Amino acid sequence: MALLGPDADPQGNPAPDPLTKARLRMWLRMLKSTRRVEQVLRERLRREFDSTLPRFDVMAALARFDDGLKMSALSGVLRVSNGNVTGIVDRLAEEGLVVRVQVPGDRRASLVRLTRKGQEVFARQAAAHEAWINELLDDFTPEEARIFSDRFDAVPHNEEETP
Amino acid sequence: MALLGPDADPQGNPAPDPLTKARLRMWLRMLKSTRRVEQVLRERLRREFDSTLPRFDVMAALARFDDGLKMSALSGVLRVSNGNVTGIVDRLAEEGLVVRVQVPGDRRASLVRLTRKGQEVFARQAAAHEAWINELLDDFTPEEARIFSDRFDAVPHNEEETP
Repeated sequence: MALLGPDADPQGNPAPDPLTKARLRMWLRMLKSTRRVEQVLRERLRREFDSTLPRFDVMAALARFDDGLKMSALSGVLRVSNGNVTGIVDRLAEEGLVVRVQVPGDRRASLVRLTRKGQEVFARQAAAHEAWINELLDDFTPEEARIFSDRFDAVPHNEEETP
Repeated sequence: MALLGPDADPQGNPAPDPLTKARLRMWLRMLKSTRRVEQVLRERLRREFDSTLPRFDVMAALARFDDGLKMSALSGVLRVSNGNVTGIVDRLAEEGLVVRVQVPGDRRASLVRLTRKGQEVFARQAAAHEAWINELLDDFTPEEARIFSDRFDAVPHNEEETP
């Protein structure tokens, strides 16, 4: 999606700041590229694994914690809403990929963790995901990939702007 | 979100390919940065303009076409579903920011276009959006921003993978 700022039209507005424009263009390309890659990942996860990006994200988060994660922590990791995470976890549990375990000393809290089968399924998906990314970004040399990784850290962390 | 591929754990798996890992890391940072910026934009659009990113995207698309866009073209431009676009356009129309106009010779099709008020509101939002991006990416020099913009074009375009 290309965006026209208000000073992009020749209506007598002040001349655009070339630096501002360069950053805006960078952002729009970055957004577009990210969406393109996500779209390909979405399609391939569906086709090859009958799965989805949010399911993959949930399993990826769980794969990092052998002891499991609370639902609240899990939804904090993801961009999807709490409600969606619950639905995804329910479905993964039905398929035997995750299990809910009681938290000792807290009757109301439970942890979610990958089952053995879940670990195996995720390992295959993660390997495929890594190969897809390698293919999609194969125009980037290792050096470039390293520089880009480092420079992205310059993007500020989430502000706490909620009222 | 950090991802552990299956060869990231010391379980006797094959040694990771450093190039593949560099690209995976680049992708994860790129995704995280994009989401961070989107999160800030979302919060500021809400706070300053009582608006949302999908509304902004719809108005941005319309701002590029003085004669208006068909609903199908509009939803093609956006990542949101057709249903969402319809809801957004309904709401923008109620607020007097867009108007539906009949397509001559096609009774069933209508075009959506910004009203004069919609153009003015969007011009203010686009100026703010541009200033926010300039601030959020202010760690990038113009030269870097230009290089990054060009290199993002190396990310392949959408495949047509739908079955």
